[in-house]
Amino acid sequence: MKKLFFSIAISASFFAFSQTKQDSIQFRSISNLIMKDGQAYDQLYDLTKNIGHRLSGSEANAKAVKWAEQKLKEAGADKVWLEEVMVPNWYRGQESLNIKTANGSWKKIKMLSLGNSEGTKGKDLVGDLLVFNSLEDFNKVPAEEIKGKIVLFNNEFPQEFIKTMHAYGKAGTVRRVAAAEVAKKGGKAVIIRSISSAYDDVPHTGAMKYEDGVEKIPAIAIGPKSAIDLANLAKTNKLSAKINSNCTMKADVKSYNVIGEITGKESKNVIVVGGHLDSWDVGEGAHDDGAGIVQSIEALRTFKKLNLPNKNTIRVVCFANEENGVKGGITYAKAIASKGEKNIFGIESDSGGFSPRGFGLDMSEDKRNIIKSWKDLFLPYGIYDFTETYAGTDIGPMKATGTDLAGLVPDSQRYFDIHHTEEDTFEKVNRRELLLGATVMTQLIYMVDQYWK
Amino acid sequence: MKKLFFSIAISASFFAFSQTKQDSIQFRSISNLIMKDGQAYDQLYDLTKNIGHRLSGSEANAKAVKWAEQKLKEAGADKVWLEEVMVPNWYRGQESLNIKTANGSWKKIKMLSLGNSEGTKGKDLVGDLLVFNSLEDFNKVPAEEIKGKIVLFNNEFPQEFIKTMHAYGKAGTVRRVAAAEVAKKGGKAVIIRSISSAYDDVPHTGAMKYEDGVEKIPAIAIGPKSAIDLANLAKTNKLSAKINSNCTMKADVKSYNVIGEITGKESKNVIVVGGHLDSWDVGEGAHDDGAGIVQSIEALRTFKKLNLPNKNTIRVVCFANEENGVKGGITYAKAIASKGEKNIFGIESDSGGFSPRGFGLDMSEDKRNIIKSWKDLFLPYGIYDFTETYAGTDIGPMKATGTDLAGLVPDSQRYFDIHHTEEDTFEKVNRRELLLGATVMTQLIYMVDQYWK
Repeated sequence: MKKLFFSIAISASFFAFSQTKQDSIQFRSISNLIMKDGQAYDQLYDLTKNIGHRLSGSEANAKAVKWAEQKLKEAGADKVWLEEVMVPNWYRGQESLNIKTANGSWKKIKMLSLGNSEGTKGKDLVGDLLVFNSLEDFNKVPAEEIKGKIVLFNNEFPQEFIKTMHAYGKAGTVRRVAAAEVAKKGGKAVIIRSISSAYDDVPHTGAMKYEDGVEKIPAIAIGPKSAIDLANLAKTNKLSAKINSNCTMKADVKSYNVIGEITGKESKNVIVVGGHLDSWDVGEGAHDDGAGIVQSIEALRTFKKLNLPNKNTIRVVCFANEENGVKGGITYAKAIASKGEKNIFGIESDSGGFSPRGFGLDMSEDKRNIIKSWKDLFLPYGIYDFTETYAGTDIGPMKATGTDLAGLVPDSQRYFDIHHTEEDTFEKVNRRELLLGATVMTQLIYMVDQYWK
Repeated sequence: MKKLFFSIAISASFFAFSQTKQDSIQFRSISNLIMKDGQAYDQLYDLTKNIGHRLSGSEANAKAVKWAEQKLKEAGADKVWLEEVMVPNWYRGQESLNIKTANGSWKKIKMLSLGNSEGTKGKDLVGDLLVFNSLEDFNKVPAEEIKGKIVLFNNEFPQEFIKTMHAYGKAGTVRRVAAAEVAKKGGKAVIIRSISSAYDDVPHTGAMKYEDGVEKIPAIAIGPKSAIDLANLAKTNKLSAKINSNCTMKADVKSYNVIGEITGKESKNVIVVGGHLDSWDVGEGAHDDGAGIVQSIEALRTFKKLNLPNKNTIRVVCFANEENGVKGGITYAKAIASKGEKNIFGIESDSGGFSPRGFGLDMSEDKRNIIKSWKDLFLPYGIYDFTETYAGTDIGPMKATGTDLAGLVPDSQRYFDIHHTEEDTFEKVNRRELLLGATVMTQLIYMVDQYWK
């Protein structure tokens, strides 16, 4: 009996060993194919240069939908379709910010209205400028001092965080809530220092939110350098600001999640891999999130090309409207719930096309431990970090349907220099970094397909 | 007795725990200071924009020596001095490459002579062009087919390596030896496809070597795109090449290692941290190796600023002449050997100012295990990779004196797109990535200073 047990144990461990060996060979095949002949970088060039930025509701976004449909077909999807999504239709238009000191002339400052903000309807909005370093400082000041004023937040980026995603999590609040907070005290408009890890003069847009029953005052962002300069100037000068903008939220329009899949060979269960097809209306949406789109398509192409044994359906979802509404993610999750379709796993890439370091794992501790048990397979590809628990905005709504979620965790040092700016262009993406991200995503999907329960 | 032993064990582990806690607090202080207020990025701007590239023997290199001396003083070194080093003095001058097909006209191709190469003395060198994909292919061809020809190597970069340092190690041979190999078979000149991970048309220079008794034929590099295009064209066309160049090796000149240190509080032993001050004569030598220089100065500044308890002398060495001779490293190692000065540890940053991932450890297995035992301290800073065993070219010669060596291992994906090119500029360096490298180097020095035997 003891002998039998011993021999079973040996067989089992031999099986485990040879299985691991087999998986490591597949990891290498995936990596070789993508690092040498991956298409993601060329496709990103095409998306960013021939379509460019693609805000929900824009013409470019409609072109991007057709583009993604075509690319999924070319990648070898067995089935490609569009899923209708109603999306917000925010419009920017002409906009400007000028500042003057008491005895100076108006000086133009580089700016971007925050996404979803209402503008000044093309009229000059002029007011005295008050500067605060934080929401906390602002909260200490009574409404009568704010009434009729334009408020500038010179909010610093917390550089002490090693992972900038955590810094962004902390620093991003002011962008979302400042307009409502300032309006509650009677302020006329709000200007924030961009949520930026750089010290340049590049303004960053990004979503803001109004509160029901609170006046919708204009909200704009300026570059860190301008914010610092104005804050310094304000110490010894009375400053006035003049905002002129035309941005406004129009009625919702129709858009689409673009979906392509290769049919599962053994099961109807689905593994989702995706990113979001929309972007802000500046730059080229290259890192955010063209990268995630082309990496997801690369994963599907690789499964086809290597004829990997997909037990489950491998489905790419190019989500609509992550930036200002998450309507694509919500719609997709509702659809699978109403069909009763089992989506066992979702993986998203929406933290930039930088060199990958790990996966964020939004799932039970037991499930997380399964993925951690694969760490030796991933280590040669630079993947060692399984500590994050956030996966992705678009796949987030699937959690309620019982889907386990993972997010690619790329190196985060450069992301918030360019996030939501004119600078988020193809040139800022490195071919090998992008492809290495696609590689490890494909490897994770391969493992999940084999071993997920 | 048992009880006593137990209580000693508890005390020891409590001591170890509180020591680790103390170290982790120091790690955080180092990180906070550097990530928020580090000067390395601004200093790199100064070095790259106000001095620029600085090949050994050049006027710019002499300026860089003065610059480094000044910066070490400003950083708070107790003592700063210059160590004389005789260095090679290679001169580039005007240079060009033109190609034509049998019935076409001459077409100019972007090129750079390889470092140390002799040129054509300003005369046109014309010859039929033969294309090979590798040295292996070339070696199969008899001398009579090579005699009088110009040879182009369209050597691919091995993209399948995940760490590009390993790819470079493999791919770099052709650059170093091609001229000698072609000359041995009577070839007139050699052109290589740049050792580049990109597919653009940027030529990369870098050191080549002649062999004694073998003719010194011109050796130049062209961009990957040109190499691929010419290799394709050569399949159906007879090609001629015309090289005109003035590069030549002049007599050695005097240069300096620039050295600054803070005196050890308990010991005369020395910990060296450094990079190399010279660069190739194109671009700005930003990643290679301005980054290593400013990171090393940052480490010294941080020790002073935080008043860290340096038992040993912490010494920054800005090495002369890494790129084409390593004379600085050789001179420094000789000097410490002849003084009998104990340099217990050396750490170098010369793999670019990218986001750090680990340290290469060139030391005994036992010593390596000491550093590995610190991994939990380093992990929050993105340092997990202790598998590499190469430390650095400049500190290499110290090994013979018994010095344990470490090298910063940054993410390697982008390095060989820009290495030794016009593109290695300040703009390609990210502030946070550079500072994070300086942070982990300083943390390692702090630990070594405390615990190294």
